[in-house]
Amino acid sequence: MSLTYVTAKEAAALVNHNDNVGFSGFTHAGCPKVVPVEIAKRAEEEHAKGNPFKIGMFTGASTGDSIDGSLARANAVKFRTPYQTNKDMRNAINAVEHDPIQYFDMHLSQVAQEIRYGFLGGVDVAVVEACEVTESGEIVPTSGVGIMPTICRLAKKVIVELNDKVPAKMRGVHDLYELQDPPKRRHINIFEVQNRIGLEYVKVDPSKIYVVRTSEENEGSGFAPVDEITAKIGENVANFFVSELKKGNIPPTFLPIQSGVGNIANAVLASMAQNKDIPRFEVYTEVIQDAVLDMMQKGHISFASGCSLTLSNEAMDRFYRDLDFFKNKLVLRPSEISNNPGLVRRLGVIGINTALEADIFGNVNSTHVMGNMMMNGIGGSGDFTRSAYISIFVTPSTAKNGMISAIVPKVAHEDHSEHSVKVIVSEYGVADLRGKGTYARAEEIIENCAHPDYRPLLRDYLNLSKKGHTPQNLYACYDFHKAFLETGSMLNADFSKYKK
Amino acid sequence: MSLTYVTAKEAAALVNHNDNVGFSGFTHAGCPKVVPVEIAKRAEEEHAKGNPFKIGMFTGASTGDSIDGSLARANAVKFRTPYQTNKDMRNAINAVEHDPIQYFDMHLSQVAQEIRYGFLGGVDVAVVEACEVTESGEIVPTSGVGIMPTICRLAKKVIVELNDKVPAKMRGVHDLYELQDPPKRRHINIFEVQNRIGLEYVKVDPSKIYVVRTSEENEGSGFAPVDEITAKIGENVANFFVSELKKGNIPPTFLPIQSGVGNIANAVLASMAQNKDIPRFEVYTEVIQDAVLDMMQKGHISFASGCSLTLSNEAMDRFYRDLDFFKNKLVLRPSEISNNPGLVRRLGVIGINTALEADIFGNVNSTHVMGNMMMNGIGGSGDFTRSAYISIFVTPSTAKNGMISAIVPKVAHEDHSEHSVKVIVSEYGVADLRGKGTYARAEEIIENCAHPDYRPLLRDYLNLSKKGHTPQNLYACYDFHKAFLETGSMLNADFSKYKK
Repeated sequence: MSLTYVTAKEAAALVNHNDNVGFSGFTHAGCPKVVPVEIAKRAEEEHAKGNPFKIGMFTGASTGDSIDGSLARANAVKFRTPYQTNKDMRNAINAVEHDPIQYFDMHLSQVAQEIRYGFLGGVDVAVVEACEVTESGEIVPTSGVGIMPTICRLAKKVIVELNDKVPAKMRGVHDLYELQDPPKRRHINIFEVQNRIGLEYVKVDPSKIYVVRTSEENEGSGFAPVDEITAKIGENVANFFVSELKKGNIPPTFLPIQSGVGNIANAVLASMAQNKDIPRFEVYTEVIQDAVLDMMQKGHISFASGCSLTLSNEAMDRFYRDLDFFKNKLVLRPSEISNNPGLVRRLGVIGINTALEADIFGNVNSTHVMGNMMMNGIGGSGDFTRSAYISIFVTPSTAKNGMISAIVPKVAHEDHSEHSVKVIVSEYGVADLRGKGTYARAEEIIENCAHPDYRPLLRDYLNLSKKGHTPQNLYACYDFHKAFLETGSMLNADFSKYKK
Repeated sequence: MSLTYVTAKEAAALVNHNDNVGFSGFTHAGCPKVVPVEIAKRAEEEHAKGNPFKIGMFTGASTGDSIDGSLARANAVKFRTPYQTNKDMRNAINAVEHDPIQYFDMHLSQVAQEIRYGFLGGVDVAVVEACEVTESGEIVPTSGVGIMPTICRLAKKVIVELNDKVPAKMRGVHDLYELQDPPKRRHINIFEVQNRIGLEYVKVDPSKIYVVRTSEENEGSGFAPVDEITAKIGENVANFFVSELKKGNIPPTFLPIQSGVGNIANAVLASMAQNKDIPRFEVYTEVIQDAVLDMMQKGHISFASGCSLTLSNEAMDRFYRDLDFFKNKLVLRPSEISNNPGLVRRLGVIGINTALEADIFGNVNSTHVMGNMMMNGIGGSGDFTRSAYISIFVTPSTAKNGMISAIVPKVAHEDHSEHSVKVIVSEYGVADLRGKGTYARAEEIIENCAHPDYRPLLRDYLNLSKKGHTPQNLYACYDFHKAFLETGSMLNADFSKYKK
């Protein structure tokens, strides 16, 4: 039986108002790029005719502008989960209207299972990017996986963007396996970062496949160069690891590293490469960025397991060129496996994630600016933090030219609790919270991580209320944030007014 | 080789100032009862002589008054982890002095591994309760396990309270297994609640054992009878389960249940037993309470896995009497296995825990009254909540005769984030947060769970700030708590002053 080939516009016509649509990929990597734009156009046409047209959106993580941007601008979104980084989508989520897009911000490892369990509604259509699709229904993903196996299996229609810019030699990079559901399911058969348990492709009934031929570039942008502050954060993390190795807290063969998304994560890995006392290590993470590629080529990283290759276009080209080198040193998995808390714990993964702000007691905000505006979402940070061998959060001590302190009396929104956050690192140093009481933790964070300009203010706050295990003062705890909202700088917080 | 028998006073003399001491048990169950009292006396004697005497304390969870009460009253505690429920210990932790006891409030499943990893300092002495100890060094626990395998292996000296009030026939109830450490460790071989993977005893070098013969009663107290409110909460949970079964969200064979500690947990189980539409089920939990025993005898529960038998003395006697009946329907495991998040996820455990307060966006406070006073600790609630098939929090809608609302604008301390909390249940109803955006979640919680007297106030708060994904207002978010602190009732909160 031969496959059905359609245009992007014809494919978009397969999507109806109120459908729940699942998209492949994780970050911009592996996302479809042409059909979502056509769905957005279709929405605009229907809206122009006075007809409703909105879809529910399931993804692996964030997507490219073709998905989140197009559909948000077209006002075509009924709900969105689990994570986004797109400006237009973010603006819609934070709009003055009451939640015009129902956005639910989920732990990424839970998305596929909650879809399977039936908690989130069905999947009507899957739109996925592939570098190969066969007449027997084998679909080979491109540079990102996300929730692709689950949405392809459950969807009534599977629209495949067959992208000829991605070499078909990518076949073999992926390890695609969908978890069983409880009760009485078996364990996941991964005991080492490089273990493979699944197939190279997702296989579905070919009669439900609609193929759209595309020729689209990777949507990756470059990384900002490592600056002095991110370099110093990286160095502090690397030195912390060396000290843990010396104490025997980390085994001499080291442990797999997870590192979050963005420039700081890149800088941390670069510092680890530069440090002679850190042995070659493995990566068990969600997003494989440029630094990992460099370090694999230089021999600092022996193997990388992730959910996506989130690379700059330059690095993506390099990857394709050297595919034979990378192919047996790297595996891309579905997000429910790349981010699986049980595996993170079993493998002893060390988690390194970025905090938006942390408080002096060790609670971390990863999502909300000033407590109300959604930035991106929790992403995989909770999947790793709660289960990691050591959970580290990194952050520059200040933002907005020093007007915002990343270390505050109380986080304005909390995504990771003091119980799960073990180490905080800024460019000033390392706060090691393990085995410490409240005041000792506060001292570590203030003296080692806060910017020196903010330390006196944070000490003032700590000394305001002497009673209670956690001397939080509900009258004063958001004075940093209020000072910023009122005067443009947290430095104008003043706790003297509370003193009797 | 014969074992060394000592008196409790002689055993206490084996403990030195600055030692880290690990105690067996979980809740009062399985805790030593005589030696800790003698250690406290020794501390008082040393203090009277002007000598310092403080110990670090590792336990499975809370303990009996013999441990936490005696040692807190003797001012003999250097640090305490992971959980406590004792009045004198709690007062010390919340004292005006800066953290006189370094208390660190940990996820219970992490205690044994963090001790092994070396993060918390060594274990000098283990003090454990047993119903049998052999000359070859086999130690059989009593009604609770906690971190016993790890502390017995690591401690230089193991003091065993051999309690003749506990029948030696308890041998066989326990399944004792200590996890391997990363890297390259295998999976935990438990695929069904009843699977056994370890030994009936902990085995150590007999030359490090010191046996103290005791004859101590169980320290269990009874449960308050189920009142109208807890009964209604139980009924709401049971009805929610029936509705999930009908939708196919829970498989017809049901899933293992975890239920927290205390009267509400007991009431929830009792309601499940009364509901004809809920099939016989299994329990995978930390604490096995009276209700579980009743339901096993009546056939509602087919098997129970836990870390302790936290029973009233009446139920404990019943258990001992019918040991042959219970022995193949029940297993007691170390806390790193009873609470293991990887197993909780694999088995599809449904978690039911009690909230101190929840906010209208679905964040939960389990630990701190008014944000600063430590109640008990997070206990195992995080181990289960973050990994459960469905995570449920239960709470009466109000406390203190209605002066405190359990549903607040913003929790004063956060232990479980909106990302992990899926369902909230009060005596008024069920808020199902799955797949809902912020405002829809707030509406579910306010209209279904809050006390009707508080609903208008909560709606006022929700409508104060219309901008942002989460319309939190940092000026007004603690007005419920401030009204209670200033006037004795949260009902006096008034958001009209913020309206322009």
